[in-house]
Amino acid sequence: MHITIINGPNLNLLGTREPEIYGSKSFETFLTELQQRFPDTVLEYYQSNHEGALIDKLQDCKGKTAGIIFNGAGYTHTSIALADTIKAIDVPVVEVHISNIHAREPYRQHSYTAANARGIISGLGLEGYALAISWFRQTLTP
Amino acid sequence: MHITIINGPNLNLLGTREPEIYGSKSFETFLTELQQRFPDTVLEYYQSNHEGALIDKLQDCKGKTAGIIFNGAGYTHTSIALADTIKAIDVPVVEVHISNIHAREPYRQHSYTAANARGIISGLGLEGYALAISWFRQTLTP
Amino acid sequence: MHITIINGPNLNLLGTREPEIYGSKSFETFLTELQQRFPDTVLEYYQSNHEGALIDKLQDCKGKTAGIIFNGAGYTHTSIALADTIKAIDVPVVEVHISNIHAREPYRQHSYTAANARGIISGLGLEGYALAISWFRQTLTP
Amino acid sequence: MHITIINGPNLNLLGTREPEIYGSKSFETFLTELQQRFPDTVLEYYQSNHEGALIDKLQDCKGKTAGIIFNGAGYTHTSIALADTIKAIDVPVVEVHISNIHAREPYRQHSYTAANARGIISGLGLEGYALAISWFRQTLTP
Amino acid sequence: MHITIINGPNLNLLGTREPEIYGSKSFETFLTELQQRFPDTVLEYYQSNHEGALIDKLQDCKGKTAGIIFNGAGYTHTSIALADTIKAIDVPVVEVHISNIHAREPYRQHSYTAANARGIISGLGLEGYALAISWFRQTLTP
Amino acid sequence: MHITIINGPNLNLLGTREPEIYGSKSFETFLTELQQRFPDTVLEYYQSNHEGALIDKLQDCKGKTAGIIFNGAGYTHTSIALADTIKAIDVPVVEVHISNIHAREPYRQHSYTAANARGIISGLGLEGYALAISWFRQTLTP
Amino acid sequence: MHITIINGPNLNLLGTREPEIYGSKSFETFLTELQQRFPDTVLEYYQSNHEGALIDKLQDCKGKTAGIIFNGAGYTHTSIALADTIKAIDVPVVEVHISNIHAREPYRQHSYTAANARGIISGLGLEGYALAISWFRQTLTP
Amino acid sequence: MHITIINGPNLNLLGTREPEIYGSKSFETFLTELQQRFPDTVLEYYQSNHEGALIDKLQDCKGKTAGIIFNGAGYTHTSIALADTIKAIDVPVVEVHISNIHAREPYRQHSYTAANARGIISGLGLEGYALAISWFRQTLTP
Amino acid sequence: MHITIINGPNLNLLGTREPEIYGSKSFETFLTELQQRFPDTVLEYYQSNHEGALIDKLQDCKGKTAGIIFNGAGYTHTSIALADTIKAIDVPVVEVHISNIHAREPYRQHSYTAANARGIISGLGLEGYALAISWFRQTLTP
Amino acid sequence: MHITIINGPNLNLLGTREPEIYGSKSFETFLTELQQRFPDTVLEYYQSNHEGALIDKLQDCKGKTAGIIFNGAGYTHTSIALADTIKAIDVPVVEVHISNIHAREPYRQHSYTAANARGIISGLGLEGYALAISWFRQTLTP
Amino acid sequence: MHITIINGPNLNLLGTREPEIYGSKSFETFLTELQQRFPDTVLEYYQSNHEGALIDKLQDCKGKTAGIIFNGAGYTHTSIALADTIKAIDVPVVEVHISNIHAREPYRQHSYTAANARGIISGLGLEGYALAISWFRQTLTP
Amino acid sequence: MHITIINGPNLNLLGTREPEIYGSKSFETFLTELQQRFPDTVLEYYQSNHEGALIDKLQDCKGKTAGIIFNGAGYTHTSIALADTIKAIDVPVVEVHISNIHAREPYRQHSYTAANARGIISGLGLEGYALAISWFRQTLTP
Repeated sequence: MHITIINGPNLNLLGTREPEIYGSKSFETFLTELQQRFPDTVLEYYQSNHEGALIDKLQDCKGKTAGIIFNGAGYTHTSIALADTIKAIDVPVVEVHISNIHAREPYRQHSYTAANARGIISGLGLEGYALAISWFRQTLTP
Repeated sequence: MHITIINGPNLNLLGTREPEIYGSKSFETFLTELQQRFPDTVLEYYQSNHEGALIDKLQDCKGKTAGIIFNGAGYTHTSIALADTIKAIDVPVVEVHISNIHAREPYRQHSYTAANARGIISGLGLEGYALAISWFRQTLTP
Repeated sequence: MHITIINGPNLNLLGTREPEIYGSKSFETFLTELQQRFPDTVLEYYQSNHEGALIDKLQDCKGKTAGIIFNGAGYTHTSIALADTIKAIDVPVVEVHISNIHAREPYRQHSYTAANARGIISGLGLEGYALAISWFRQTLTP
Repeated sequence: MHITIINGPNLNLLGTREPEIYGSKSFETFLTELQQRFPDTVLEYYQSNHEGALIDKLQDCKGKTAGIIFNGAGYTHTSIALADTIKAIDVPVVEVHISNIHAREPYRQHSYTAANARGIISGLGLEGYALAISWFRQTLTP
Repeated sequence: MHITIINGPNLNLLGTREPEIYGSKSFETFLTELQQRFPDTVLEYYQSNHEGALIDKLQDCKGKTAGIIFNGAGYTHTSIALADTIKAIDVPVVEVHISNIHAREPYRQHSYTAANARGIISGLGLEGYALAISWFRQTLTP
Repeated sequence: MHITIINGPNLNLLGTREPEIYGSKSFETFLTELQQRFPDTVLEYYQSNHEGALIDKLQDCKGKTAGIIFNGAGYTHTSIALADTIKAIDVPVVEVHISNIHAREPYRQHSYTAANARGIISGLGLEGYALAISWFRQTLTP
Repeated sequence: MHITIINGPNLNLLGTREPEIYGSKSFETFLTELQQRFPDTVLEYYQSNHEGALIDKLQDCKGKTAGIIFNGAGYTHTSIALADTIKAIDVPVVEVHISNIHAREPYRQHSYTAANARGIISGLGLEGYALAISWFRQTLTP
Repeated sequence: MHITIINGPNLNLLGTREPEIYGSKSFETFLTELQQRFPDTVLEYYQSNHEGALIDKLQDCKGKTAGIIFNGAGYTHTSIALADTIKAIDVPVVEVHISNIHAREPYRQHSYTAANARGIISGLGLEGYALAISWFRQTLTP
Repeated sequence: MHITIINGPNLNLLGTREPEIYGSKSFETFLTELQQRFPDTVLEYYQSNHEGALIDKLQDCKGKTAGIIFNGAGYTHTSIALADTIKAIDVPVVEVHISNIHAREPYRQHSYTAANARGIISGLGLEGYALAISWFRQTLTP
Repeated sequence: MHITIINGPNLNLLGTREPEIYGSKSFETFLTELQQRFPDTVLEYYQSNHEGALIDKLQDCKGKTAGIIFNGAGYTHTSIALADTIKAIDVPVVEVHISNIHAREPYRQHSYTAANARGIISGLGLEGYALAISWFRQTLTP
Repeated sequence: MHITIINGPNLNLLGTREPEIYGSKSFETFLTELQQRFPDTVLEYYQSNHEGALIDKLQDCKGKTAGIIFNGAGYTHTSIALADTIKAIDVPVVEVHISNIHAREPYRQHSYTAANARGIISGLGLEGYALAISWFRQTLTP
Repeated sequence: MHITIINGPNLNLLGTREPEIYGSKSFETFLTELQQRFPDTVLEYYQSNHEGALIDKLQDCKGKTAGIIFNGAGYTHTSIALADTIKAIDVPVVEVHISNIHAREPYRQHSYTAANARGIISGLGLEGYALAISWFRQTLTP
């Protein structure tokens, strides 16, 4: 099974940004561990700070991947364009947020993209990505 | 590990209510399967349509369970009292919703209770409960 | 024909509460008159101040009654849980309010429960219950 | 007893407009049946698409009719002028809507006119007019 | 000097409507007195309950009258069309309200039409019409 | 092909109203030119300042015309009744505005009527009517 | 008859402030003319930029003056304290604004003080003060 | 004098919940002290997490107690039903909050129940209950 | 113990303003009684209608008084400046309102100043001042 | 005449995305047809999913094209930057939307970009692009 | 060059108020340093807690000073009167805030006064006053 | 000292865009002058119309520059992603706007990015950039 993880703006700073809060583990390191925990799943990873590049990548997934794990970060709450893309492609999407968006600023509690995703996992840390993979494996496997 | 699952109003109707949508499996049947998938975890289940009874049960969990999976259903969006309870007890709570609350009516997109929970899993069906158990096992196990 | 009348919080005070406004007739006395006016209809009556108990009773009506006359009183405007219950059961519901909710405070002009009921009768006094029974008899009779 | 039924804009299309939803019965046909069901009540009928004509007619009812059944249709939610008229005349008014306004668009849930009427019957179909007549007969008869 | 007074919906009821509040003097009687107080001013009077008729009349004033005293009553707060008319014609308009709109319901505190009028006199009773005439005579007289 | 153009309040003033802005051409003159540009299309024209008359006319179009070009002017933003009419008749409607409603006051940016029309052309001047005719000819011609 | 005119902040600048708009006449000069037009009325004048001083002056009017003409200027829209004062004293108040507050910024369309005054004259220039005096003379004279 | 203290959801946790903030004194211990400070006043105490039970208890106070001290906790801001109860019974109610609701989240600054109570004491800690008793003793004693 | 009572705008009218509602007792008379009830507390009293003077006085209390009882009256709901002052000084403040602000206009339910005070007593009449003194004595006494 | 068509995010998917709704014709195929219908107009086409790239392209049009047809898709409702660009360049812009934005979600009814465009054509399908070309030819041709 | 610095409410407390945050330097001390840094600029300083006094001072600057540095503190967000004054005088005003108003409570993010000032410097500490002086010297010097 | 100036969308048009308003000086020309005024400060300049490119550049500044002057232009009011970046990097940021955002459209008065910057300078023209450099030199120099 092929799963694509797409991370949005500023998530490339993980590990060096406020390490006392987010820890000193980079997403790349976490990804290696994740691949080891799911050896029979191909994990593809893409990160960009550009809204347009995220749209391009999401569109490109059509027909190439079984499921997308998407963390739009700051674009989650402002991008109708990204939400339209998720609706337009035929690939199931699970939205993941490392922090609990319901415990943060009011403008982070609405998600344009989640409305078109299958579901959302928020606040469970990096482990949320692992849960999303588990869900794809449990749900998409015949 | 002892995990308590607490379901709110109308979730006792699962299996008989709009089966073409929610399926014909009752939560009790699902629970049996869930217990089989996690044999070394004690799963306790409680359901009530009464907001006060849910508060009583949440309070009662203090010191007795390692983690709570809470689906407040309709009370999720209206109960400050339940949110206060989650904040008051020292037990980690994961909020689970079977449907994707971000894809429903505007008044379902705000959650008082999620703000005080560790995180939220929404839209991933009954499997969301299994993911929550996995998270507790991954996170709370030393 | 079996009709169930379910009254919400504070409606048990009818007759003793502000009698110069609401009259000195209790709902029980009115119910006796109502039964006499509709001798071939079985009228069941239930009142509770507990939101959860109202949900329990509504759920319990499934398969046992031809129609429900529901006056959620103060819960009308705040209870998503009660609205979900009305949607979940297969029994037709007519919402009745003794006073005209459109002539009262702004927060009483929105009704979560009416959105899932067949219709609403508001402002026509206790006689609203009689009209609802007439409607069920006119509509449900083959 | 003399009762005046006043219907607002587009209600003259009943029977030909979306018959799979509203049925193929025109209001005139329904009116004939209604008169037969209430043989000792004089039913007067007036329909107009003009807000001003509805105001003229309501004003004209003063002193000529025992009660008015008013369905302002689209003007219900926008006309302060019609609401002022209902308040100015001394004739009791019952507002009737064929569909359930609480189950429709948000802008249909507020009624300027209902605030000045005695009460409202909504969502119970054409039968709502019959219930309003019953109420006038029950309430206004000494 | 020729002045046109245009009154909107329900103002034809003055004198018979709630006389304990509005007095028992009809606008026609008041108009006679007004004409006597301003003998060298031609006062033309028009009243209609129809928004469209008020627009027609306002348009018709162009080139025929020195000033318009306009009381749009209930249409004041809802009619963009009437406001457009006032803007389109080249005749100065003074808006008059018998009651104090700032002391009434919130929805009466906004006036579409006043925004395009020269000014507004509100709450000073029928005498407001006399003040408007005085203003036209003071302002328009060379 | 028979096309009906229906113009709302104040559009009869075109040509004499603020000619430095709207030009000195009346709609009647423009209509003659339009007919010459589309010689094989029958153009019917109707204008009224009365909301009710516009509703009457729209209803009357049913079965008589292939398409309606509707400019509700000030009623565009306030009339639920007109929007209901457009929904009730089976004739395709294109909404046209001479000015760009998105560049004007906030209250002109919402259109009740456009929601039920096929589409909207706004800000392209009188030429917008010609475009609408072109669209009907392109779209409705087999 | 004794009338007190109370002007609020910045009205002392009249005559020197944007003279191309407000003219070059100071309020003091206008007051002299006003006194000449109403020789048998004693006109007292008070101006302050201090909200508290305006409250003190209004309170001080109790029992000393027949009527108050009040132009709260910028405090009109923000001062609950001034509105409370107008309600507390037994002297009739007419609110006057030189410009048309309904044609200005949205935050100038609400008036706390007008709600407790008898009425309001707005947009009729300095002549509004003369109209207010006329009204007091017409209304308060036995 | 008989005074009833009614506490709402989660107030049973006082003393064990966040003791560094709320202190380690339970409400029961505080109640004993309170009784000692007011030896000639009978203090009755009731606590429930159930909205319906609080309504039942408030209703039951009618005719049995001189005054009620009510702390609705989380229900304060959401319960129209409780507010209706306070209005329906003839017993004076003083609302008490331990913390200062004006210094907390915006949704805690509105109180449905306070609107129908005599008054409110908020932010003065447990001592607020003692002040309420003093007030009843000062006010109700002839 | 030295306590300073600071009253805001219009509270100097107590006793003469609407005596049927507020009683005929002036605050000065009440203060004398209050001093007699608390003989070992020095009560200082200050009243002003000027927002700036209230700020000056509050600042001046720093280091001179043990506690402040503050009734900002109309400034309560509009003055960020007064709220800043309360935050800036190191003297504990209890806000008192004679009437129940939660039972009045919506704009009186928000208090800028209460957010920075220790707490608030509202609706308990002049006795609220006595309660505040009791609280200072109970709380500040070692 | 040179016309530039600029399409925003996800419009590259036309033809393969939900073909039962949007048809199976790609924009490129449509463009070929369009060029054939307007042989003496040079049509340049640009599409990007990147907001910044759309800004770059719009800026680049200055002095090179006679008119721009712009469909900002999802960015229409969120991009102040794109609206600023349209205002900054001296090229006339017509905004086109394939679907009727007034018949969709509320957040699609506001357009930042349309406010600075000449006008908007919405809901008339791909034919809207042809109408825009016609308008440029009719309007810009001397 | 003569520059006037006008500080609003509570800024007189600088140096003694929360010194761990605002430092222990009083504005007077800072002013001495500032004068030394700009020896050829005459710096006049005025501070008041009274809104009216600030208006008086601003008005008094007309013709006497080259530029005003204004920090309205708490009045910034509530005073339409002060904003009117800034608009009425012909002296350029630069608004300065010591803290970053965009990083504070929502009600501090709107500034009535800044809308009429030339510009605003916020969040750059006391140094903001020096920057404003630099700007006046750079901009106003021929 | 090394300072980086980052300009957002459309600021590359400075000098050619509406020169009667913004002047005919390009930012590059201004930058040369600026460098001459601050010869011992290294000024690096970056401009992009792409939100993602601005995020990339801001991230890249970490550890390379002493301070950032950021003018996000249109993205200022819509980009949560840019605001997150400013928070994530450890470089002090001063936000600069050439025009006074408080004097423009309401949607330009809120700044997501300013909330995470040290401060903001708005409305003081290009000179605002010079003031920001001065501030960095004054503040960051030991």
